Amino acid sequence: MINPEQPIGIFDSGIGGLTVANAVLKELPNENLIYFGDTAHLPYGDKSADTIRFFSKTIGEFFLFKDCKVIIIACNTASAVAYELLCELSGNKAIVINVIDPVVDYTIESKFKKVGIIGTQGTINSGIYPKKIKEKNPDVEVCSLATPLLVPMIESGFVTGQISELVLENYLNDPILSDIDSLVLGCTHYPLVKKEVEAYYLKHNRKVEVMATNEIVGRYVKNLMESKNLLRKKKGGKHLFYVSDYTASFANTTKLFYGEAVNLVHLKITPR
Amino acid sequence: MINPEQPIGIFDSGIGGLTVANAVLKELPNENLIYFGDTAHLPYGDKSADTIRFFSKTIGEFFLFKDCKVIIIACNTASAVAYELLCELSGNKAIVINVIDPVVDYTIESKFKKVGIIGTQGTINSGIYPKKIKEKNPDVEVCSLATPLLVPMIESGFVTGQISELVLENYLNDPILSDIDSLVLGCTHYPLVKKEVEAYYLKHNRKVEVMATNEIVGRYVKNLMESKNLLRKKKGGKHLFYVSDYTASFANTTKLFYGEAVNLVHLKITPR
Repeated sequence: MINPEQPIGIFDSGIGGLTVANAVLKELPNENLIYFGDTAHLPYGDKSADTIRFFSKTIGEFFLFKDCKVIIIACNTASAVAYELLCELSGNKAIVINVIDPVVDYTIESKFKKVGIIGTQGTINSGIYPKKIKEKNPDVEVCSLATPLLVPMIESGFVTGQISELVLENYLNDPILSDIDSLVLGCTHYPLVKKEVEAYYLKHNRKVEVMATNEIVGRYVKNLMESKNLLRKKKGGKHLFYVSDYTASFANTTKLFYGEAVNLVHLKITPR
Repeated sequence: MINPEQPIGIFDSGIGGLTVANAVLKELPNENLIYFGDTAHLPYGDKSADTIRFFSKTIGEFFLFKDCKVIIIACNTASAVAYELLCELSGNKAIVINVIDPVVDYTIESKFKKVGIIGTQGTINSGIYPKKIKEKNPDVEVCSLATPLLVPMIESGFVTGQISELVLENYLNDPILSDIDSLVLGCTHYPLVKKEVEAYYLKHNRKVEVMATNEIVGRYVKNLMESKNLLRKKKGGKHLFYVSDYTASFANTTKLFYGEAVNLVHLKITPR
């Protein structure tokens, strides 16, 4: 039996998932939250599915040990390959949420005709978005483009300015994405350039709805927990942020992803 | 007693070190070579010194088990933090070479007055190049600039063209690098944009010697082994390329770094 007082666990391969943590807490400011950034093993995008499943299972066990009521996989790569495994692991002890299904549901509800997906090479190669959208509505057209330079570009601080504009233009101008009416920003980092992506479409007089997965996931989690009577009743939540490998550079960039600086605590977790 | 017939071991956090392997084999085509790309743990640049030392030790033990006569640390981050540890580990069983000292020696021999260093955040933060150059000649001016977007830019295929030109211009134009007479490309990936860096200085009428570490290390290894009578006598060497995590994307980009495609073999090594 899940108790509303239990915390929410959110994990990502790094600190990019803080965009999701931030969006979830904006919707649910009274929840206790445990964030785990598996910085010792980042990035997941370059690793094999088996390796990512192994890391995800270890983190899932940690969250269950910490009595989490909800486990959010705030990483597209892990969402694509480790969701079923974590559902099995959690059984009826916790609800597992990935960052892909809420976005898929949203594109279906919104009745988009041609959905573009951009993400890391790993996410795009997995084909998970087209597969899940087509399963729900085979008539929706889906096109995908890997945009591998965006994460390092954002991490290097090139969010505004000529370089980011040129890089975004280079990607968004790709014929693969022509005639789309909506674009999924399929990576935890991309909400940081949402405005710039919207500006690109505005500049080119194109009507394209740009979907930031963190916002959609935040609303999804809120609705789900309301419907299941799982919202925490007490006011004000406690938030803990762990990383599996601590460096000053992670600490310095939490503000970029979370909106304000957070205190990262180094925590090694080991497989059971 | 080291035998010239023993192989050379080269490792890096990924496949970028193939630029070093390639340069070494250009100088020493008859050597047997074992390459190990620790792709399961890349990138080292984001990890703590202790974590990198742990990985490097495991790889060093593997090379000693494989009877290597020389161990080349083809990674600037590992060179900065794990060189002494690997020297200790190897004792008189193998010669350990890092990618930093040969470049430092070269800048001193070349009597440069003001040396610029570009590299990843990790390498630049370590301050290893300025420290080692100053130790050999305190009169040499050294200035360093982190250029974190170059690795992903190169890996994303933006080597020539407007984006790479703009990114390089943005970095090389930094006031920190003004008045240099020489520039160290302090990262295994950067030899791939050496021509573009040289073109930048040519365009701006500046005389700056651009140093690709892989070429300098290749020549250094050759001279050292000649002087120690350690060159392999037989013709034609056998070359093995291992990675600790195999993905198609690594396999596809070996050509980029090595000049020709190589066959990557997945090999897990475990700490002793």
